Amino acid sequence: MKQLRLFLESLFPISNEEFEYIANLFIAENYKAKEVIVQTGQIAKSIYLIEKGLLRTYHLMDGKEINTYFACDGQFISTFASFIQQTPSIETLEAIEDTMVYSLSKEALEAAYLKYPKFEKLGRYMAEQNYLCVTERTLVMQTKTGREKYLHFLENNTLKIVQRVPQHYIASFLGMAPESLSRIRKEIVRS
Amino acid sequence: MKQLRLFLESLFPISNEEFEYIANLFIAENYKAKEVIVQTGQIAKSIYLIEKGLLRTYHLMDGKEINTYFACDGQFISTFASFIQQTPSIETLEAIEDTMVYSLSKEALEAAYLKYPKFEKLGRYMAEQNYLCVTERTLVMQTKTGREKYLHFLENNTLKIVQRVPQHYIASFLGMAPESLSRIRKEIVRS
Repeated sequence: MKQLRLFLESLFPISNEEFEYIANLFIAENYKAKEVIVQTGQIAKSIYLIEKGLLRTYHLMDGKEINTYFACDGQFISTFASFIQQTPSIETLEAIEDTMVYSLSKEALEAAYLKYPKFEKLGRYMAEQNYLCVTERTLVMQTKTGREKYLHFLENNTLKIVQRVPQHYIASFLGMAPESLSRIRKEIVRS
Repeated sequence: MKQLRLFLESLFPISNEEFEYIANLFIAENYKAKEVIVQTGQIAKSIYLIEKGLLRTYHLMDGKEINTYFACDGQFISTFASFIQQTPSIETLEAIEDTMVYSLSKEALEAAYLKYPKFEKLGRYMAEQNYLCVTERTLVMQTKTGREKYLHFLENNTLKIVQRVPQHYIASFLGMAPESLSRIRKEIVRS
């Protein structure tokens, strides 16, 4: 949970007592590669802080998986709209590799907001980051060329995600065919 | 500021002292129809609670205005990514009709978070609502027919927005030509 402490301290000063309290709300869970954590149609009961591993969210469009987010060590992930509203998820959350997470339930988080209002800042931070992420993704998809999209992806993701997420997942995330991504990658290596 | 009190009370219990404090941070401002409040490229220094009027946000794509949000009496609006990051706005915020707002600066809001951490809940609420709005808009744009998009718009907006926002603004918001929206509206009236 050292990552959690560092992360929270980047948001606000936190006492040992407050940290103990919030840390105890997180539950360690392990998922195998390809295991589904939240299925489309289920309610996302928790948000996940990844200790080690790689997860993705995706939805189906015309029977094809469209990836919408990747996260790895030290990052939070959930099917966020479902989590904040506690309504059926329109996306699936799935492990790409064997992954260990700390899960924090909506119920536990709401209790933390009540006990220590400063944890609202954590909720605000997560909502703001998710907002920025989806806004930026929409803008990039609407306005950039294939090559620009891939360069933006490289700039805005950790090395682990760039190296370990399968290429056809990245292609669907960028809204392009795997062959197009392959061509773009070759052009970039050459240039 | 009665609307503000009712709104805040829907989020959390609030004392007279807390309400006085936050209410004093809001500044009354008036804008004329077509007046620009935040220009693309400027930093959105404030978020606006509309007392009476009608505002929109839009960005330019290939020289055309693409509307992204409408808000009227009792609703909050800003160019939100710019507001939370204090970076240049990629959108313009403009009055559709003469509008009176209460503006709350980022600086004042941050001070409120420090003085009364419960106001973080207001920040979290705004971020979550903006997240849900942009996620839903993206999904609707990707998956619905023109008719479905318009019906969804009718269901998810106040009567004032439906009745007073010019039809060509609504068409660009829905990603369709004004003639298509006109045809869809006629079909709906007939059915």
